[in-house]
Amino acid sequence: MDYKYLSRIKSPEDVKKLNYSELDILCEEIRDDIIETVSKNGGHLASNLGVVELTVALHRIFNSPDDAIIFDVGHQSYTHKLLTGRYERFSTLRKKDGISGFMRPAESEHDPVVTGHSSNSISAAYGIYKAKRLRGESGTAVAVIGDGAMTGGIAFEGLNNAGRTRGNFVIVLNDNKMSISHNVGAISKAITHLRNRPRYHSVKFAVNRFLKRIPFIGEKTAKFVFRVKEVFKRAVYRNSFFETLGYNYLGPVDGHDIRALEHLLWTAERYVRPSIVHVITTKGKGYQFAENKPKDYHGVSPFDVEVGAVESEKLTFSDVAGETLVKIAESNQRICAITAAMTTGTGLSEFKEKFRNRFFDVGIAEQHAVTFAAGLAKGGMIPFFAVYSSFLQRGFDQIIHDAAIGNVPIKLLVDRAGLVGEDGESHQGVFDVSYLSMIPNMNIYSPCYYDELEYRIKFIAENDMLAAVRYPRGCQSGNVKLDYSLDFNHLQRNGEQLVITYGRLFSNVYKATENTDISIIKLNKIYPLGEEVVNAATCYKTVWFYEESSKKGGIGEYFGSLLYENGFKGDLRIIAIDEEFVPQSSVSESFKRFGFDVDSIKKTLGVK
Amino acid sequence: MDYKYLSRIKSPEDVKKLNYSELDILCEEIRDDIIETVSKNGGHLASNLGVVELTVALHRIFNSPDDAIIFDVGHQSYTHKLLTGRYERFSTLRKKDGISGFMRPAESEHDPVVTGHSSNSISAAYGIYKAKRLRGESGTAVAVIGDGAMTGGIAFEGLNNAGRTRGNFVIVLNDNKMSISHNVGAISKAITHLRNRPRYHSVKFAVNRFLKRIPFIGEKTAKFVFRVKEVFKRAVYRNSFFETLGYNYLGPVDGHDIRALEHLLWTAERYVRPSIVHVITTKGKGYQFAENKPKDYHGVSPFDVEVGAVESEKLTFSDVAGETLVKIAESNQRICAITAAMTTGTGLSEFKEKFRNRFFDVGIAEQHAVTFAAGLAKGGMIPFFAVYSSFLQRGFDQIIHDAAIGNVPIKLLVDRAGLVGEDGESHQGVFDVSYLSMIPNMNIYSPCYYDELEYRIKFIAENDMLAAVRYPRGCQSGNVKLDYSLDFNHLQRNGEQLVITYGRLFSNVYKATENTDISIIKLNKIYPLGEEVVNAATCYKTVWFYEESSKKGGIGEYFGSLLYENGFKGDLRIIAIDEEFVPQSSVSESFKRFGFDVDSIKKTLGVK
Repeated sequence: MDYKYLSRIKSPEDVKKLNYSELDILCEEIRDDIIETVSKNGGHLASNLGVVELTVALHRIFNSPDDAIIFDVGHQSYTHKLLTGRYERFSTLRKKDGISGFMRPAESEHDPVVTGHSSNSISAAYGIYKAKRLRGESGTAVAVIGDGAMTGGIAFEGLNNAGRTRGNFVIVLNDNKMSISHNVGAISKAITHLRNRPRYHSVKFAVNRFLKRIPFIGEKTAKFVFRVKEVFKRAVYRNSFFETLGYNYLGPVDGHDIRALEHLLWTAERYVRPSIVHVITTKGKGYQFAENKPKDYHGVSPFDVEVGAVESEKLTFSDVAGETLVKIAESNQRICAITAAMTTGTGLSEFKEKFRNRFFDVGIAEQHAVTFAAGLAKGGMIPFFAVYSSFLQRGFDQIIHDAAIGNVPIKLLVDRAGLVGEDGESHQGVFDVSYLSMIPNMNIYSPCYYDELEYRIKFIAENDMLAAVRYPRGCQSGNVKLDYSLDFNHLQRNGEQLVITYGRLFSNVYKATENTDISIIKLNKIYPLGEEVVNAATCYKTVWFYEESSKKGGIGEYFGSLLYENGFKGDLRIIAIDEEFVPQSSVSESFKRFGFDVDSIKKTLGVK
Repeated sequence: MDYKYLSRIKSPEDVKKLNYSELDILCEEIRDDIIETVSKNGGHLASNLGVVELTVALHRIFNSPDDAIIFDVGHQSYTHKLLTGRYERFSTLRKKDGISGFMRPAESEHDPVVTGHSSNSISAAYGIYKAKRLRGESGTAVAVIGDGAMTGGIAFEGLNNAGRTRGNFVIVLNDNKMSISHNVGAISKAITHLRNRPRYHSVKFAVNRFLKRIPFIGEKTAKFVFRVKEVFKRAVYRNSFFETLGYNYLGPVDGHDIRALEHLLWTAERYVRPSIVHVITTKGKGYQFAENKPKDYHGVSPFDVEVGAVESEKLTFSDVAGETLVKIAESNQRICAITAAMTTGTGLSEFKEKFRNRFFDVGIAEQHAVTFAAGLAKGGMIPFFAVYSSFLQRGFDQIIHDAAIGNVPIKLLVDRAGLVGEDGESHQGVFDVSYLSMIPNMNIYSPCYYDELEYRIKFIAENDMLAAVRYPRGCQSGNVKLDYSLDFNHLQRNGEQLVITYGRLFSNVYKATENTDISIIKLNKIYPLGEEVVNAATCYKTVWFYEESSKKGGIGEYFGSLLYENGFKGDLRIIAIDEEFVPQSSVSESFKRFGFDVDSIKKTLGVK
């Protein structure tokens, strides 16, 4: 596609040269390109369409990369990428070796840090800002953070720490009146309050007008009037949530008005205190389907631009988890569901509708979610926290401290466990097995099939245990009849080779070894392991351990230590993800990379 | 010791029966008993002396255990323990099988949850509160949280989520004008502002008095006066930080005035919204030494009550880490030091004095500390974050996401790594090896001696690498000459047995095997391991792996997998901490428990 302006933007300098009517066209072109690319490659749409003008204004007022601009989460950095020399490669968005859907320093000097997880931008930007001051360098740092991300504890820790500085550190609050799911906490109330209150100036004028009508104005009254104005100013303008924390509050401003944005950003850039620039944006702006249903257009699969994104009708593991929770909640009043702003993503929409008082969206706050769940469990409820594997990393300490030490029976539904594909490094669910299995009192299950997931969720609901059930993104493949009531299934054949595996990899292992003499042990429970499964494996000559997870600290290493302690004298080979972050590419490409696809498994095992 | 009142308190019911003059004596007795016990056993002193009256008042207004009272961190729960049936066992405080220095549900129904890590009380209490409402049970939940703990992100996540409830959930803000180290963030400014502002009522009266002097009071002016008062009310009384978040703010109140405390707690208990009761307490209250220097009396070793606590003159690993940082910071302007409210504990006091602009106390905010460090490193600085092993668990996701994915060279000084003794389960540094070594791009070192720690800190400062150096609480024992420039030291002797170990355990292993033919490999770098060390170990017949850390996900399992992959055909035995939380007891008792002491090692290895 050849655009009049966008095709010629090689760096932010080129954006600075355009006049306002040219900028209007540029913004249209950016939207067209984003819509077209996302419709082909999938990706984040609504969030990106919402910040087109904001990003343009940022690049006109600030000088990237001298000024470091960090987009929180990074799922709204597409415009930023298009304006910083990546227009020509943008069609490779989210593809193997292509442009990342998040910020990625390896990709451009204009991406100061890796993004992908929410709420860290203030901390990262403040670090860069302080480094610049300490080194006597020019430039500042800007964190662009959504109202949803503001609920994350680290955002507050960053706000708290940065509020003490004396300099032009800038936070842009991108208020799209909606986080990924509806946000109901106190901070969102506080922001709504800011959004809706009268503007300071109009209030001041009204007061002035009124005061002029008071007949007798002596010196005392004049002083009094001055004080009244001060109080008004404080009450209306200064005593906001952010002012209390030490910030110069600017806004709210229309996030689609480039001139107005430039004015406030210019002011913040010249200020001697840290500023919060409160920007009101419309998610999905410029694409009617997305404006109408921004939630449905947060992250989308490829779609037809004319028709709009159609929700896939394929059943997913998330759907099955959500449906199962609804089923058991109907007969058991103690079942609760918790999400950290991922109601739809974790399949909890129906639960939310049906059991509103037992459903908790706590905002992007995984730490709180875990500890809150522990409190609910202590109080006699059976709380399920459904969360993506990579995001649960945030709750790691709380799982240890608030759940495991006291053996508090919370239930973790670890969604997106394993390889996730196009979202890349930050979203891969390849660590949960390692970080959960090092926690005493933890019980971990890794189903392969929908009926197994349903069975397992019911099982952990009925048993007074601290437990995690982990399952992959997307759909199941095939279905082999197994006995889920056992901790493991042993498919004994005649050979001397054994493959041990768990989770969805079993499906490929099964396909690869059908009609061979290679035996399989499928672990239903992956941690802790009992003697029985170790004994069963010890008699084989060669044991292969297939693991769609990090090798270090995984179940393979653990199984190995038990196996050799048990007198195993054969060979053990672990095929897992070894000391690397897994880059973006389709799940099937990732599977090939690690030898997890049927063909690779056959080759490794020597199956013809 | 036989006290007139304290000895007869079997439960909170007995506290309710006393009159105010009796309560005064009770409070004196409580202080005497706490001072005496801590002077013998060590423990937290200043924080506990600060909340004697507050705890008494809490137990008179609320009905524990129906009302769940959670003391954040729990290092101020001694009075609570004395009033809830644990007076007679209180002399066993922090001893093996004795009373815990923190809240511990296994100990009493009056301890609703495990405490030890900061800032989680709001989340846990809110969970219990919601469970009560869902189950139709009576009672409420109270979180007692310090101003220092308020800087933790999870506290904010909890505040945010609980602020939306409609009921009498209670948060007591224990404002002792000081967290463990001096607290400099925005939230502490906001709290100071609340503490120092004029009280609403006195302001209102002043305004009324003044308004009466204005001569002409017509209807309009009367309305105006009414509005002015409203604005004053909002500005002074309602628009506080906490009111913005949806809380009914009560206070500040003198935390040593039982009647005044009771009045506010009573009000909060009857309110239909969540309340923040702002209580001003004096750390160390009633023990002059501690009042004068509350920081020195936060956590103390046994001391003479008449003389006061004397700082130990023994050099510790923390001291060496701090001194080394000072040394390298003198010649290298890029060195920064970060602490999460643990300046003294991590040995950074001198650094703070000497390099004020490169020293950052970010408050109890480990997540932010890690990401902020990553920002500093991105900006060209060399940031060291000194933090206790168990508290770094809070920064786990940030280490992965903000440091490791982009291979950002931050430096973690992991203090209190290994067994810590009397602080028990929540403080044991037995997980860091597992949770750090599963992170790609991470480099981990575990020195045994002071000179090794110094060497290693200099080494990671000079090398552009993401690295963690972990070292134990307390002092070194012995000193064997080794070559720290190598990744490992191989003490080759003539036998067929090899012991592999790292960290301070090497010292005991060395002593146990002196004058035997058992070889030792001491790992200086524990992750990742190179081929060379695996090759060196492969030729032995029996390999023992000693690890003062969790077995699951530890270096032993990892070494084992490499060893067997390398063709090792001997036996490997891992002696480590196996799937349990380590209860309180002295470090030497814990060492015996796991077979880490010299005698046990000799016995295990068959050394006479």
